Amino acid sequence: MKLNCDLGESFGAWKMPMDTHIMAIIDQANIACGFHAGDPTAIKEALNLATEHGVEVGAHPAYPDLQGFGRRSIAMQKDELVACIQYQVSALCGLADIAGTELRYVKPHGALYNDMMRDATIMQAVMEAVAAFKRDHNLSLMVQATTKNSSLSQAAKAFNLPLIFEGFADRRYTDDGFLMSRNLPGAVLSEKAAFAQARQLIEEGTVTTASEKRIALHVDSLCVHGDTAGALEIASNIAQLIKQ
Amino acid sequence: MKLNCDLGESFGAWKMPMDTHIMAIIDQANIACGFHAGDPTAIKEALNLATEHGVEVGAHPAYPDLQGFGRRSIAMQKDELVACIQYQVSALCGLADIAGTELRYVKPHGALYNDMMRDATIMQAVMEAVAAFKRDHNLSLMVQATTKNSSLSQAAKAFNLPLIFEGFADRRYTDDGFLMSRNLPGAVLSEKAAFAQARQLIEEGTVTTASEKRIALHVDSLCVHGDTAGALEIASNIAQLIKQ
Amino acid sequence: MKLNCDLGESFGAWKMPMDTHIMAIIDQANIACGFHAGDPTAIKEALNLATEHGVEVGAHPAYPDLQGFGRRSIAMQKDELVACIQYQVSALCGLADIAGTELRYVKPHGALYNDMMRDATIMQAVMEAVAAFKRDHNLSLMVQATTKNSSLSQAAKAFNLPLIFEGFADRRYTDDGFLMSRNLPGAVLSEKAAFAQARQLIEEGTVTTASEKRIALHVDSLCVHGDTAGALEIASNIAQLIKQ
Amino acid sequence: MKLNCDLGESFGAWKMPMDTHIMAIIDQANIACGFHAGDPTAIKEALNLATEHGVEVGAHPAYPDLQGFGRRSIAMQKDELVACIQYQVSALCGLADIAGTELRYVKPHGALYNDMMRDATIMQAVMEAVAAFKRDHNLSLMVQATTKNSSLSQAAKAFNLPLIFEGFADRRYTDDGFLMSRNLPGAVLSEKAAFAQARQLIEEGTVTTASEKRIALHVDSLCVHGDTAGALEIASNIAQLIKQ
Repeated sequence: MKLNCDLGESFGAWKMPMDTHIMAIIDQANIACGFHAGDPTAIKEALNLATEHGVEVGAHPAYPDLQGFGRRSIAMQKDELVACIQYQVSALCGLADIAGTELRYVKPHGALYNDMMRDATIMQAVMEAVAAFKRDHNLSLMVQATTKNSSLSQAAKAFNLPLIFEGFADRRYTDDGFLMSRNLPGAVLSEKAAFAQARQLIEEGTVTTASEKRIALHVDSLCVHGDTAGALEIASNIAQLIKQ
Repeated sequence: MKLNCDLGESFGAWKMPMDTHIMAIIDQANIACGFHAGDPTAIKEALNLATEHGVEVGAHPAYPDLQGFGRRSIAMQKDELVACIQYQVSALCGLADIAGTELRYVKPHGALYNDMMRDATIMQAVMEAVAAFKRDHNLSLMVQATTKNSSLSQAAKAFNLPLIFEGFADRRYTDDGFLMSRNLPGAVLSEKAAFAQARQLIEEGTVTTASEKRIALHVDSLCVHGDTAGALEIASNIAQLIKQ
Repeated sequence: MKLNCDLGESFGAWKMPMDTHIMAIIDQANIACGFHAGDPTAIKEALNLATEHGVEVGAHPAYPDLQGFGRRSIAMQKDELVACIQYQVSALCGLADIAGTELRYVKPHGALYNDMMRDATIMQAVMEAVAAFKRDHNLSLMVQATTKNSSLSQAAKAFNLPLIFEGFADRRYTDDGFLMSRNLPGAVLSEKAAFAQARQLIEEGTVTTASEKRIALHVDSLCVHGDTAGALEIASNIAQLIKQ
Repeated sequence: MKLNCDLGESFGAWKMPMDTHIMAIIDQANIACGFHAGDPTAIKEALNLATEHGVEVGAHPAYPDLQGFGRRSIAMQKDELVACIQYQVSALCGLADIAGTELRYVKPHGALYNDMMRDATIMQAVMEAVAAFKRDHNLSLMVQATTKNSSLSQAAKAFNLPLIFEGFADRRYTDDGFLMSRNLPGAVLSEKAAFAQARQLIEEGTVTTASEKRIALHVDSLCVHGDTAGALEIASNIAQLIKQ
């Protein structure tokens, strides 16, 4: 089990906390590509910090939506979306090389992440976009772990594209292994519950859903946050747990 | 002597003519990188066309200025500028790879091109930005041919960066080998005069300046345009001349 | 019956044709507000031309989407959308005043126009946004004429907001008075059929739908285009027809 | 003597502190217009807060430069600059009206502010841009107080444009009444020195420059900040002083 975190999300004078503390804890940094956040300078800073800490870097491409921070779905044509993702991944790929590291994977951001998980056409576009890089690199695609991992694996096989399945410690799951909407009460777990969910995922490979059902969930990497003291503490505790 | 042309400069619904005629004539395509023009879809189209015609591709990075088409100087800090150029070149580099070709050189666009030619600090930033790619690629930098080529070559040597010196057929030169400002009368040559200037550059390696002085000018590549019938005809005639 | 046309849609170096011919024919100019097209300079030029020709000006606000020309739906929160529309309408309103004219109405653009016609929540947001200007101005809202005009009128009454119902000469209608999708064959009429549809709308207040049904359709203003010789000729012929 | 502060400078997910504490202290809020900061939602929030506190609102237009926060000069043509300012001021003007207040003045932001103070052509463009609103509104222009106030007043008279002269409590002045560059040591005053400078400006209408010279400086409004506890305390102390 690895830990991943979204980073490089400053833009010009606006700074998102980029904690060196979290870099010391995580294994994988999902770095913004400039379309929802991350100007070129912020991207380079995040890449340099990741390189310093030996953290794997992934591209975190998004819909072109600075004001909405990539959280608003945009109804793009498939070709547009493929080109949009490839542009962003290319930018990260070159900058990673300059920073002395290597791009390892792609994790779509925000609305694009949610959209690909619920719309097979968009998932197809994302896979096609990332697979096109395969000749020179060996990029994986990070997707959300659900009870349907195997059908996604099937789809990815057609593109010869390795998948990384991502789980969430601090979010309540539904019975099909998706996340409860943030708008519903109980969707975000307390620190204690988040730690318990992480432990259960790590030790048993299961989660207990909102309806108290215990379901199997194969997770390769847990998403953590480092922007508050509380989040950092959870991340740190989970990191300890994994090392044991 | 090679011929180069700026391409890929559409943006969304706004189309700049991207003539397959000019692709059949030129040797080098300077492709917009998204900051002054060129959305990801337009960039891919230009790259595919260049690949089809066996035309070398260069990145054409610019100040971040869509509304001004990169023609307005922006007073950026050196680090910002380096990062800004590297982001754009990285994007082109990855997309070129996907298109089945390879990025060969970088030609700064518009105000950035003019600024680097008159301000050593900006030239230094540009060279530093491009040289950082050297490990994996073998990028050259396209700069304006003037009477001071050798001092630029000197500067570039410190970065181990090959230069391509660019000349202009249709613009009147001053005695120091720079271009007369477009705002001055006589700055843009007639088709006939442009062809004559190209011939002189190709055959003698000289230009006759605004003050009727004949100066030596080493030029590796001539900039041509393909957006009007007239421009295409000049380009075509110059291409014939070179082949002879 | 009036004629309206979308104008002011250039952006920087990219020009959309802004024909003085069409300004001489139309009654209402829907002017881009900078979010899908129309930089400040292009907006001012369109406003000055409209003022010169005594054409009424409307604001043509859109989703923030330059690359997509406002043709891609963006899933915005209601408050965001209201603010986004009010910002754009405010910009047009002030610039219209400087141009010596007065903003008279608002016609949402592209995907926003389509979205408000099929989603009551978005229509509510649009009405709320425009109605907030009512104290000082007397803005109307231009919406698509369908067989459900009266229910929209009802909704608008709650905002004390006058509506202008817009029809299309060159598009095939469905039985509920909506437009057939452009992707379907026969959706766009020939010049001759477009003129016939305009005549029928003007003289009888009806259209013949794709299923050959004749339905009543109350239309206050017909949308025309001026960007091709053919479009201009249709517009001109329709203008003649109205004057008779 | 009044107090003014730059506000409304959030953008999407990136928040700049918008303290209700500072709104309770200041007389004039310079509100971002969307080009260097301030999306439509952030602008409306700032306007509503200003209205609530009875604070005068001014538009704070900037060069179109989100990434640079408007701190980078952009070499715009005069007509472009005029249109760019008028678009932003129009947007604020309409949104202020919706918020139930009225736009009272314009204070250019960042690089545009600095550029207009050192370049008469740019000042001319700014004055022309703002004066064009005069028929309906009664906008003033806020400029930097220097020893050359009278020549600016002269220039403004030609436009029938009232000026507001702005001073700075926390910045060291040079003998010509300009500010020392932030890059020089001693350019930014300690809290204690800032309070002393404010007191001297209020009570005597003078400042003591970097060379220990005491010069007369007519100031109508002092610029304060509210983004740190220290800044807020200075602002609060100065506000007390003025009320006495």
